[in-house]
This record gives sequence, structure tokens and C-alpha cells, in this order.
Amino acid sequence: MSTSSFLSQLLRRVIPPIDSDRSAERKARSAVELCHALLSARGEVSGAALARETLGAYEALPQNGFKPFVDLLCTDFSPEPARITTAFDAYREDPSPAHLIALQNAVEPPRQELFRRINMAPGGTAALVDLRRRLVEEIDAHAHWISVDADLRHLFESWFNRGFLRLERIDWHTPAIVLEKLIAYEAVHEITGWNDLHRRLAGDRRCFGFFHPALPDEPLIFIEVALTDHISESIQPLLDPDAPEFDPAHANHAIFYSITNCQNGLRGISFGNLLIKQVAHELSLEFPRIQNFATLSPIPGFIEWLKSMEGEIAAAPATEETMSLLRHIHNPAWAADHDLRARLQPLLLSLCAYYLTDAKEGGDPVDPVARFHLGNGARIAQLNYMADTSRRGLLRSAGLMVNYQYRLADVESNHQAYALEHRVIASHTVRKLARESPLSHTTNNVERD
Amino acid sequence: MSTSSFLSQLLRRVIPPIDSDRSAERKARSAVELCHALLSARGEVSGAALARETLGAYEALPQNGFKPFVDLLCTDFSPEPARITTAFDAYREDPSPAHLIALQNAVEPPRQELFRRINMAPGGTAALVDLRRRLVEEIDAHAHWISVDADLRHLFESWFNRGFLRLERIDWHTPAIVLEKLIAYEAVHEITGWNDLHRRLAGDRRCFGFFHPALPDEPLIFIEVALTDHISESIQPLLDPDAPEFDPAHANHAIFYSITNCQNGLRGISFGNLLIKQVAHELSLEFPRIQNFATLSPIPGFIEWLKSMEGEIAAAPATEETMSLLRHIHNPAWAADHDLRARLQPLLLSLCAYYLTDAKEGGDPVDPVARFHLGNGARIAQLNYMADTSRRGLLRSAGLMVNYQYRLADVESNHQAYALEHRVIASHTVRKLARESPLSHTTNNVERD
Amino acid sequence: MSTSSFLSQLLRRVIPPIDSDRSAERKARSAVELCHALLSARGEVSGAALARETLGAYEALPQNGFKPFVDLLCTDFSPEPARITTAFDAYREDPSPAHLIALQNAVEPPRQELFRRINMAPGGTAALVDLRRRLVEEIDAHAHWISVDADLRHLFESWFNRGFLRLERIDWHTPAIVLEKLIAYEAVHEITGWNDLHRRLAGDRRCFGFFHPALPDEPLIFIEVALTDHISESIQPLLDPDAPEFDPAHANHAIFYSITNCQNGLRGISFGNLLIKQVAHELSLEFPRIQNFATLSPIPGFIEWLKSMEGEIAAAPATEETMSLLRHIHNPAWAADHDLRARLQPLLLSLCAYYLTDAKEGGDPVDPVARFHLGNGARIAQLNYMADTSRRGLLRSAGLMVNYQYRLADVESNHQAYALEHRVIASHTVRKLARESPLSHTTNNVERD
Amino acid sequence: MSTSSFLSQLLRRVIPPIDSDRSAERKARSAVELCHALLSARGEVSGAALARETLGAYEALPQNGFKPFVDLLCTDFSPEPARITTAFDAYREDPSPAHLIALQNAVEPPRQELFRRINMAPGGTAALVDLRRRLVEEIDAHAHWISVDADLRHLFESWFNRGFLRLERIDWHTPAIVLEKLIAYEAVHEITGWNDLHRRLAGDRRCFGFFHPALPDEPLIFIEVALTDHISESIQPLLDPDAPEFDPAHANHAIFYSITNCQNGLRGISFGNLLIKQVAHELSLEFPRIQNFATLSPIPGFIEWLKSMEGEIAAAPATEETMSLLRHIHNPAWAADHDLRARLQPLLLSLCAYYLTDAKEGGDPVDPVARFHLGNGARIAQLNYMADTSRRGLLRSAGLMVNYQYRLADVESNHQAYALEHRVIASHTVRKLARESPLSHTTNNVERD
Repeated sequence: MSTSSFLSQLLRRVIPPIDSDRSAERKARSAVELCHALLSARGEVSGAALARETLGAYEALPQNGFKPFVDLLCTDFSPEPARITTAFDAYREDPSPAHLIALQNAVEPPRQELFRRINMAPGGTAALVDLRRRLVEEIDAHAHWISVDADLRHLFESWFNRGFLRLERIDWHTPAIVLEKLIAYEAVHEITGWNDLHRRLAGDRRCFGFFHPALPDEPLIFIEVALTDHISESIQPLLDPDAPEFDPAHANHAIFYSITNCQNGLRGISFGNLLIKQVAHELSLEFPRIQNFATLSPIPGFIEWLKSMEGEIAAAPATEETMSLLRHIHNPAWAADHDLRARLQPLLLSLCAYYLTDAKEGGDPVDPVARFHLGNGARIAQLNYMADTSRRGLLRSAGLMVNYQYRLADVESNHQAYALEHRVIASHTVRKLARESPLSHTTNNVERD
Repeated sequence: MSTSSFLSQLLRRVIPPIDSDRSAERKARSAVELCHALLSARGEVSGAALARETLGAYEALPQNGFKPFVDLLCTDFSPEPARITTAFDAYREDPSPAHLIALQNAVEPPRQELFRRINMAPGGTAALVDLRRRLVEEIDAHAHWISVDADLRHLFESWFNRGFLRLERIDWHTPAIVLEKLIAYEAVHEITGWNDLHRRLAGDRRCFGFFHPALPDEPLIFIEVALTDHISESIQPLLDPDAPEFDPAHANHAIFYSITNCQNGLRGISFGNLLIKQVAHELSLEFPRIQNFATLSPIPGFIEWLKSMEGEIAAAPATEETMSLLRHIHNPAWAADHDLRARLQPLLLSLCAYYLTDAKEGGDPVDPVARFHLGNGARIAQLNYMADTSRRGLLRSAGLMVNYQYRLADVESNHQAYALEHRVIASHTVRKLARESPLSHTTNNVERD
Repeated sequence: MSTSSFLSQLLRRVIPPIDSDRSAERKARSAVELCHALLSARGEVSGAALARETLGAYEALPQNGFKPFVDLLCTDFSPEPARITTAFDAYREDPSPAHLIALQNAVEPPRQELFRRINMAPGGTAALVDLRRRLVEEIDAHAHWISVDADLRHLFESWFNRGFLRLERIDWHTPAIVLEKLIAYEAVHEITGWNDLHRRLAGDRRCFGFFHPALPDEPLIFIEVALTDHISESIQPLLDPDAPEFDPAHANHAIFYSITNCQNGLRGISFGNLLIKQVAHELSLEFPRIQNFATLSPIPGFIEWLKSMEGEIAAAPATEETMSLLRHIHNPAWAADHDLRARLQPLLLSLCAYYLTDAKEGGDPVDPVARFHLGNGARIAQLNYMADTSRRGLLRSAGLMVNYQYRLADVESNHQAYALEHRVIASHTVRKLARESPLSHTTNNVERD
Repeated sequence: MSTSSFLSQLLRRVIPPIDSDRSAERKARSAVELCHALLSARGEVSGAALARETLGAYEALPQNGFKPFVDLLCTDFSPEPARITTAFDAYREDPSPAHLIALQNAVEPPRQELFRRINMAPGGTAALVDLRRRLVEEIDAHAHWISVDADLRHLFESWFNRGFLRLERIDWHTPAIVLEKLIAYEAVHEITGWNDLHRRLAGDRRCFGFFHPALPDEPLIFIEVALTDHISESIQPLLDPDAPEFDPAHANHAIFYSITNCQNGLRGISFGNLLIKQVAHELSLEFPRIQNFATLSPIPGFIEWLKSMEGEIAAAPATEETMSLLRHIHNPAWAADHDLRARLQPLLLSLCAYYLTDAKEGGDPVDPVARFHLGNGARIAQLNYMADTSRRGLLRSAGLMVNYQYRLADVESNHQAYALEHRVIASHTVRKLARESPLSHTTNNVERD
């Protein structure tokens, strides 16, 4: 398979060798000593050279050197409690700007300056993003690492500010070193190889990503768009490598069918909402005829939620037939049975509409994708039956998908309604479907638009 | 003059109109209201658009709107003392990572997030750097502005990290929009116009600058280098637009004759030491024969110091002749008198050598340029008489200049000696000169190298 | 003056040293020997290296080595008459494709292959263009050089095909090495320095040039455009470095006020007509509101023609007053006399209208600028009085200028009418003016549009 | 397979639809009418637009419209015999430069100007190169097309002059649109997909190509190089996608293992010799330790020649055993038989050495690859047994491969010896092998170096 060498490289990077624990700890300690030097006066003059050396020592750590290394980052580079207390006492006495600044300095961990200095080495930014990736992967087992995580996150929020990112079109003219990342990272609808990728970058598609100048070969996030003359109701035609090309000059719809955050090391630093709007803007410049911007999105939590609601559905004024019908969906084979498909359609559509618009958790929709797009100011436009008949699609959402629509003129007011009043904006059709669900006796606060 | 339109643009930018104080304050208040909106939930979804609007309101402020605007930044976006106290109390009770992070969050002014969001607007970075430029210009009259200054400086130290800067060669292929900045910014030896500039970018010269991706047309700092076959002992030949070109293939010396920090808004964020070393590295790749890297530097504090020492010189075992000779130097005309020049030479050289190596303030040399280069690990190599015979050169340093030498192999140990033990590294010749000065009875701690 | 160093460079290039004639001839002969080697088998394998050496020898020739060098190019690298005759005889016998190809090969001078091989050296293209520049400058004294000229021209027509040229916008982001060429080359309205240039590249102007990939720092031709809200009737405001900037968002006119062919070595290879149309196209993309594309052009031959027509004007039914009025225009001072200006206005306008529309030479207008624009499909739209009050403008055209208008829809039919039927397309107003001239008794074939 | 979509695109381009012959001819005639218009006066003013239209008509031709189109190019755009005769008569009368130029103009087919004008359309250059590709494919069946072929070749020799080509490194940072061409074009050792390609572009390899500015996505020729610490004796390790990477810092050999001309439309316009030398130069700059530049080349004509020589070998003083041994090689299975391999080794090596050094055709070696490299000034350094054990390698050359060595200091003299005296330069070892062959009674003129 054509991506194997990249993946094997990836694996090699991810899985460094393993030493004896003692040797690993000793190496971690040596790397940390370089960190101390880098923070000292010597680091000021020999900054770049010493940063390079420190980075080299870190990257040469055996796999089991990572834990002792991060542990030492926790213990050795945290702020001194005594200094904090002194600074706070002075501030409480006299809350002047100078005392506040002194307090801020006292609470800032030396780690932050350490990371800023490591960043001077070539490849420093990439290494720090990778450090956080590994850290968050294992943080559950090492609760005290949150202080290191907080420092990195604080830096990254500063460094990866939208003002420093470049929106770039990705197509067949893009270097292979970037394209192979798409294949490796695509999280929503797997890219099976270069042929598949080539189709997704053809003339009736657009792909855009955000890039940071210090990581020129690494998309931070990318989005895949299909240019069509109708709202896409099913994902299969969009993923078919042999689908005929549509002439984009006739396009009036742009369908966002996949959006992937690439860097786990940047978790929590969101670019997605900015990307969608900027891409919509770019597309409307290139294709003035395109007026409809919508996603074709998965509904990842539907089936799980449905299971959790079995009791309430049973308690609802639903016939026994409803219950027995619903039992079929746990076996994906139902989708091949035409009769079952027809009988389940109204039931699944109404329950899913209810799920998206009324199933809440702390005021917000249960479904994570719904939260993302509604929070961005989109509206729920249309539910699609048999839209993703892959095994995964059937298991997660009974094959249903949804179009979230971005009407540029309404985005801000939709967002306000959602953010301040938890209002979910949905089309008339979707609201009507929700009302027909067996659970619709509950009050809903969906807004008709 | 060819730069007038640029300068008039500059003036236009620097001097916005003036409103009535009331109107100016009202406009400042409106701009700050947009800042509040930008920090609110609305700012999250409409980030870039709102940032653009906020920036526009700030940039449209009349000249006298700046003060009320910054005052409001101080009052409205500082952290809440009560929240700080609560967070500190929790931390004192239990100094856990989580409590420390909460305390860090409590002391961080919302201004920092405000500035990060403004940075999302096109031109945001440039506007924030310019904001700090104006702020530091007037900070002496507004002591409480130090909190805003501290926030901007904290952000800039993160954003303008060496890891994000690009070293770029500047030559006649560089866009005019960058070149005109050299003319405007050059602080050491004024560039009188495009013709002068062209000579400084000719084949026997090199010019390099650091650039940040968000400010592509703005050098942050630049350095001018002459490639020669000897150590330069006088600045005039280097500044002469009609000087014949030297064939760089025969060069074995690189003379750094001017280094200029361009952005007052980045004051305190130093790039200079990194630049010199990296440029030396680049030059040694392009010209393997070049082994000598030295500056030809001004001695800006010499005459002033000399005046302040008059009493001590008189007290020293100096003849009356010495004192009467020295009196001549306050009138630049002395430099045209061959006899005077000859008689003053040994005296001025020895006093200047003493000044550079022994005149200290808090352990470090009085002379700011000496502090900079010695702090970088350079050594004082040679003093040059009649090296800068411009009026300014005569008034500041009696026409003397100095070569600081960068021996790449010694830079780190020199720096260590200087940073840890305040040792000033100087050549044998310079040390000998210093010992011959009328003031040399004092102990000195100059290290022979 | 800021361009002096460039000009002195230019002079240095143009005026190489002078040797004794004997030495110069010997050096020319050596250079030609390298040319022979380059054409031999050895040239095939060592192509690039030998081409470099040959070029070096040519460029090192003393000034008086040029003539013997070109003379040897004529004698040594022309086709052999005997071979031509043989090839022709075979072709006459049997005009087959093979015999025709053989004849073509026989008549092609080996010089062409020589020039193609020289072109392999770095800088080869530039050197060959410069060779032709010098050659055409002196060709009148060396009629036999037309064979070398024909070969170079044949090659350049192939190499500088429009398909290989890039249209590039020139502005303040353009490298200084290109901008200084604008100052040096501008032929229509001198650019007095960098400040003047900066104004011509400001926000309400556009400048475009054609570039060839092998001459990246050399515009082949460039055009200067002003974006306005009216048709420009006078050149002075466009050339004033201190003129206020117009907001291009409100522009509905694009005025082409200067077009300059830069390379005398490419004489006869026209790009101008292509450039105007492509620039009009680019501007209509950037500024959809711009509907009017017109020049503000000089009328270089008007006064000269007027002098030549004095007899006919006297013979025409013109009053004596006419004749005495006209006598004033040979002294530019008339333009300062308000009364004279008013009295001359109708007379000059009508005569100039007649000149542009009716004064022909071999069927085409006498005025070279008129021939260029009419041949491109433009129409004569408007005559402007007191439009160029510079001394040169008054002496060449009594201060008159003309707007040629490019209506994109009519360009092709206008051109056809002009090319096939010699019809001059002019506006109603201009035709009316022409009819009022003292000479208008002659028939005219101006077409009203 | 990952390249299928590219190949299907290719096929789509190569196989346009088929019309009825009458319709195809009518369309060809229409396209040719546009060609006439393009050459007329109208073409001068509307050049680019009309060129675009003409190109569009040509590209829309059905598959069977190609022949009538080219036939019309032959008949309609050839020079007029009468005009040639008149021009020749004038020239014979007076062979002046002017008459020669007139004769040159008379014999130049209007087709050349037609092609130059078509080249003004976007994509024109690519279309003309493709036109010649199709033309040479079918020229054997249409002998009169040689006149069109000669015109295109004449233009291409001018346009694709080395001085206009850019040498570019090709690696994993190269756009996919270029990389897929490598997969499609590689002629020597097939690239099986993106994974294979990735290995060939890894850190211990280099790949370079020549590009023309008008065909930025199309390599004209490319060469693949392996950096090693020994001379490669076998191709398999170089083609193995899973071969471990060698650290190029330790390389002292550069092995050119594949060189591919990509454009059949540029047949006869050679870049290969220039490419090898320039790549050797680039590599010696990047890796000063690399002193050995050699190919690992196929010997495509060996077995075929061997068959043709059977009679002579039998006649030579060879034992019957020789003959019976040789019979085995026509079945590739022999290579798996250890005993056979050992017994055939001396025989095959000596015969192949003889083949490369002594088997001549018109004075030059029979083997086309040998002709290419010897003509470039390389020497035959070493023969390798079992060097290409692929089926194709066994069938063409009994698994043998050869290293041609490029000693930069000797390249020119080697070439001279070869070009002028047909001398084949080979190492002592190879000459010795040749002398041991059963055929070595013939005189040989191999030069020892």
C-alpha cells in the first residue's frame, strides 16, 4: 500500500527504543540538565546552539525516558511557592500595577521560558507540538502533568493565533509531503490511497487547510468541499474515486463533507469555526453563483443515545411495533432489507430530528458535531436517510446524516441565539419531524428560522 | 529628496488629527466597547470580523484619543483583585497544580486575550507593535501604563521568538518597500538616499535582517557588513557612495559596521546577539576564506564620561599640559589641526582604552555598545584614531572608533567570563593602552586573551 | 542624484576600453575562434562550459573590437553559396519535402546555431539582446551587418514569443533592481527619481510589464496607468509627485499615459498591442466598474508636419490672420499669453484633428503614435488643448495631446477597417474639428463610429 | 492501483472520439480555416484570442480528424515554389545579404509563423509538443509529414534551448502533479507506485529534471541518483522500496541508475548529456566528498547482438562446450541454476566486454546506451554479473549491467577521442575481459585510460 513507508516512519517516530528504566531515567536527567543550562545565563548567549543540543537530547530519549523527563519538567521548572506568597503579600498590601506584574512573574512557571527557548532550535515548534501530543495521550495516568500541559497550551494559544495562520488551498499541485498527511490524518472518511486522494482534489472539489509558518509541511486542520448543483444527501457518491467530474462552472452548492483536526498536540486550540467561514468566503469569490454552503455531517452519538433512551421510548405512547422495529438496527444487516428500510424510515428520521434538536446535556445538544456547527452559527437544514451505509455509519447513526447550513447573513445571530439562549435553529421540516417522534411530548426550544 | 513621500506618509501616520477632548474620549470609549464585545461570546464566533472592526475603531482615533483609550485598557481589562485573592487562598491552602493554574489564570489580565483576538484582524500584529511604540514613548508621563506595556511585552516575547523569525539577505533584489525602511530606520550611520543605499548593498557588502512572517515588509533588525581584506580602521570609506568596489572573492574580513533595531514597539526584545552570530555563520558558508569577524563600532559615551572625569584626571599624576590639551576636544575644529591631532593621539587612545575596559557602572562597562558586544562574547580588539571625523563622531567620541572581534570559538567562554565574573576581554594592545592612561592607577580586571 | 550609480554602471557597460586597432582585431579573432570551436563537435559535449568561455571573450572585447567581431560573424558564419545552389538545383528538379528541408538547411546561416549555443551560457540571452542593440545602433555605417541582424531578429521572434512572456504588475513591492530600470528606460515622460517613481506606483496607479524568464530583472516593455473618474485632459496632474491620491474604488476610467519599449535589442519585435489589451483585461477584473480605457498620448509629429504644410495652408482659403497667428507657436512663450492661447485654440485644434485623421503617408497616418494605436483597433476620442505645457510638449505638438480610446468590443472591427481599408476611426467631435480646419477641402476617409 | 486515474486521464487525452470520416475532415478543415485567419492581418491584432480559438478547434478534433488536419498543414502552409525560384534567381545573380535574407524568407514555411502564433494561446507550447508526439508516432505511414515535423523540430530546438531550461531537484516536496509524471514516464526501471517513488526520493537519493518555464508541471528529462559508499554492482538493491536508508553524509559515490526522456514530442532534441554533467556539478557542491560519478546502465542490445553473432562464435576457436552453454541463456531459468551461473560467468563477461568495446556499426558502438555515454565523454569502467535479474534484464542482457564512469577532468578529452577517432575508452579490466572473448581475434581500437 502506497502510504506504508510514511506510516512506518510515523511508527518509528512514535515508538522510540526502550532502555532499562535506570538508563532511561539517567538519560532523562541529562536532557533536563541541558534544559537548566538553556535557562541560565549561558542560554542567553548560546541560545540557538544550546536549544538545538537540548532538543537533540530530548528526541534521543528512549520510549520509557519520556515519563521521567516530564516528571522532571513538573518538579524542576515550577514556580516557587515562597516567591508566590511574597509577591502576593506585597500585592495585597498595595495592589499597584508593579506589584501585579511582580505577582504575574512569580506565578509563571520557568517552564514557559524553557519552552520558548527550545523553540529557537530548528524543528523546535514541531517538537513541542509533538511533546504535548504524547503528554495528552498519557495524561490520565499522570494527573500532575496538567501543569506542563497548561504551559504548553498557553504558549500554543499565543503562537497559533489565527493572525499567524495561512489559509492555503490544497490540490494536486501541493507537495507530496503535505498530501501524504491528508491520507494519514483524515479522520471522518478514510482516504484509502493516492488514487482516492486524487479524486478528492479534482476539479469539482476544493480542499483548504490552515498552516503555520513554522510547520510548513503540516496542515493544522483541513476541510474537504464538493461543488455540486444540489444539496448532497448521501456520502457514497462523494467518496467514490471513480465518480464522474462535475463541471464546477455550474455549481451553486458547496458541500463541506469532511473536516479534520490534524494535530493532537494542539487539542483545545480551535481553528474549525474560522476555517469554515473563511473557506465559504473564498469559494464565494471564486464562484459567485454558489449561494448554498452546507455540510454533510455524521451524527456520531445517535445510536448510543437511542439505546440510553429505550426506557423512555417504551414509556412513551409508542406501540409495541415501534419497539420491535427499533431492535433491528443493532444488526447492520437491516439496511439491506428493503421492507425494513421503508418501515424504519419515518421512525428513525423523527427520532433523529428529536435527538439533534431536543436531546440536551447542560443546555447544549448531546451530539458533538451538532454542538460544533450550531455553535458556529449554522442551522440544521435537512436529515438524510441511508446517507452513510458504511458499517460504521450504520452502527453509529443508523445510516443517517445531516446537512448543517451556513447562511452567511444569519451566522452571527444564530450563534448569539445559541450561545446566550441555547436556542437550536432548525428548518421547518426538521422541526416537524422532531414533533412526530415518540418522545416529542417534551417541550422543545427549537427555533424556526 | 527621494524619501520625502515615505517620510510624509510616516508623519501622517504618526500624527493623526486632533479632536476636542470630549469627542476624543467618546471615540476612545466606543473603541473600548468593541474591545469588550470582542472578548465576549460574540467575539468567539465573529472573531476575525469583529477584530477588524475593533482595529478600525482604534486606528481612527484622533491623536488625543490615544490617552483615554490606553487609560481604559488599564481600568477595564485588568484582573479582578478579589478573584486573585480567592485563587491565592485556595493555592495557599493546597498548592496543587490545579490551584496554581487557577491562580495563573486569575492574575492574567483579560487584556492579553484581547490583544490575541485583535491580532486576528489583518494588520493586527503591526497595529499592536505600533500601539506599544506609542505607549513606550509616553509612558514616563503615565506610570500606570506599565501594566499594558507588560502585557504587550509578554505577548511579543512569545510571538517574536527567534524560532519564528526568518533571516533574510537584503540586497538590490529586495522589494523597494523594504529598502525604504532601511533608509528610514538606519540609526548608526544615516543613509542619505537611494544612491547611498545602493552602494551599501553592492557586491562587496552584505546586509541581513530578521523578519517575522506577520510583518513581511518590516525588518525587525538589520546589520550591514563590509567584506574587505583588512580590519577597517575608519568609517568614512565604508560610507562613501563612490568608493570603488572590492572583489569579495578576495575578502578575508567581514566588518559589521552598523546594526539597527527597527521597531521601537519591540523594545526590550533583543535579537541583536542572535543576528550577529547567524550572519557570521552565513558568511563563513558563502566565503570560507573569511576568518575575521569584527565590528567597527562607535563609542557613544566616551566624551561625556571624559567630562565627568575631569576632576579625577586633574587629580591624577597628569601634567598641566594634559589638561590643557584635553580642553581642545570640545571644539571639533581640533581635528583639522595636524599638530593637535598628533599631540592628542596617545592621550585620547589611552583614556579611551581605559574607558572601555575599566569604566564600570554596577560592574558592567559604562559604554552601552561595549556592554552589548562584550555581553555577546566579543573581545575589544583595536582602537582607531580619526576613525569617524563627522561632527557627531568628534563630539561623542573625539573621532575614535573601536573594533569588537567575534572569534566564533571563544564567543561562549568570553560571554561566560563576562556574565558571571564581569571580566572584560581585550587584546594585549588595548590593555597596554589602558595602562598608559592618566587614570590607570585604579585596579582593572581586564582579561588578556 | 539617486540614479547616478546605476547610470555610471550603464556607462561603464556601454563604453568598454579602447585598444589599438591591431590588438582589438586580434582579440576579436580569438573570440571568433572560440565561436568556431563552439560550433564544432567539441561544442556538443562541452556546450555550456565552452559557451561561457566564448561569451566571456566577447564581453571582454575592447570597444573597437566590436566592429571586427561582427565583420567576422558576417564572413565566417554565413551559408555557403555553392551548397545553396546544389540544394536549390535538387529542389527545382524534385520539389519534394526532403529537398525543401535540405534547401532550408542550406540557406540557414551557421550563425543561428552559434547564437543558440551561446545562449546556453549563463547570461547568454541578455548578451545576445545587447549584441543586437549595439549592432542596430551602428548598422547604418555597416550595411552588410543586416545578415547578422536578420539572424538575431529571427531567433528573438522565436524566443520572445508572447507565449513565453509573463505579464507582471510592477509596484512598490517590486525589487529595486527592476524599478531602477523604469527610471532609466521611461521614454515618454521622464521619471526624475525614486520619489517621482513612488508616486507613479501609488494606489491610484497601475504599472505592468512583460518579462521573459531568461531576463527576470529586465522589463521588455511597461505601461503606466492612472485610475480616475474622468478622461484625463492634461498630463501635468499625472506627473506631479505631490498630487493627492485618488481612491481607486471610485475609478471608472483607466488612462494609459505612458508606454515604453525597453530593449533596443528587441527592436521590431512588438509587444505593445498585446500589452495594452491584456492590461485592460486585468484592470477590468480588478475594477469591474472601469468601463473606459483610453490613452493620454503625445502627438509627436504635429508641429513638424505643420511646418511642412505652411505653403498649403497659405494657399488654403485662410485669412492672413491665421498665418500670423500660427507664426507664434515656434516660440514656446506663446503658451503663457492668455490672449494668444484663446485665439490659437480653435485653429490648433482643427489643424491637429486634420493632421491625425487626414495627414497620410502611404495610406497610413503620418503620426507614429496614431499609427500604433489605430493599428491596435483604438479610436481617436478627444483632443486636449494645453495638455502638455512642458517645453518639449509645446515644441512638438503645441501643447496638444490626444486620447485614443480602446472599446474592447470594437477593437477587432476597428483594426480590420484600418488594416484592410485604411479607415481612421474618430469620434464625431474630432471629425467635426477636422472639417473646420483650413485644409479640410481635401477629401477625407475618416469613419464616424 | 494508485496511478490509475492519471492513466485513465492520459488515455482520455490520447484517444479522442471518432467521427465519420466526412465529419472529421470537415472539422479539420474548419480548424485550418482558423489557422489561416491567425496568419492574416486579423491575427496580428487579435493574436492571443484567435490563437486560443484555433487551439480549441484543434483540440476538439475527433481522433480521425488528426490526419486530414496534418495533411492540410502540409498543403496549405508550405512555401510557394515560384517564390523560392524567384528569390533564388535574384540571389544567384547577386549573392548579397539582402538577397540571401529574401531567399531565407521564401523557403521558410508559413507553418513556422503559424506555430509561433498558436504558441501565444495558453497551453500552446504543450499542445504543439503533443502535436509533434502524435505526428512522429504516425510519420512512417505519412512520409510527407516530414515537412511539418521539420518545422516543429526547428522551433523546438530554438525554444527548448538549454539556456531556457531550469534544472530542478525533485523530491518529496515536489508537487504531486509532477511526481505522477515520474511514475508514468520512467522508462528504464518501472516505478510501481507512490511507495516505490517515495523510496527513490529518500534522503540517500537525488532526482533532478530539466523543466521549461512554459511547461512547469512537465519534466523534459529526469535522472535518478543513488548516493553510496561503493560502486553499485546490481540494480535490485536500488529498486527495493524497503531498502534501508544510507546516511548521505558518508557517501563518496553517486550512481546514476536511471535517465528518462519524457517528451516524445521533443524527440531528437537532446538534453541528456547536459543533465548528467550539471547534476554531477550540483552533487559535488552539496557533497564535496563525492568523487566518483558513475552510471549503472542496462546493455539493451547485448543478447540480440549475441544471437546475430552465433555463426561467428561457432567459427571462432571456441569449444563445443561454449556453444552449448550459450544456448541456455534464451531461457531465463538458467539464472536460478547456480552451476550454470558459475560456468557462464567468464564467457558472458568476456563476450559482453567485446560487445561494448568492439561491436561497431558505422564506426560507433552497436549498443545505444554505450553510444550515449561514450559520446558524452564517459568511460566503460566495470561489467557486473547478475546485476539485473529481472525477466527483462535476463532477456535483453543476460542479467549484465555496466558502469559508465564520468571523470569530470577527462570528459572532454574522452569525448574528443570518441567523436573524432571513434576511440572507445574502457578500463584495463574491461579491455582484458574483451580480449578473452571467443571473438577477440578481431582488431580492436579500445583505448586504455
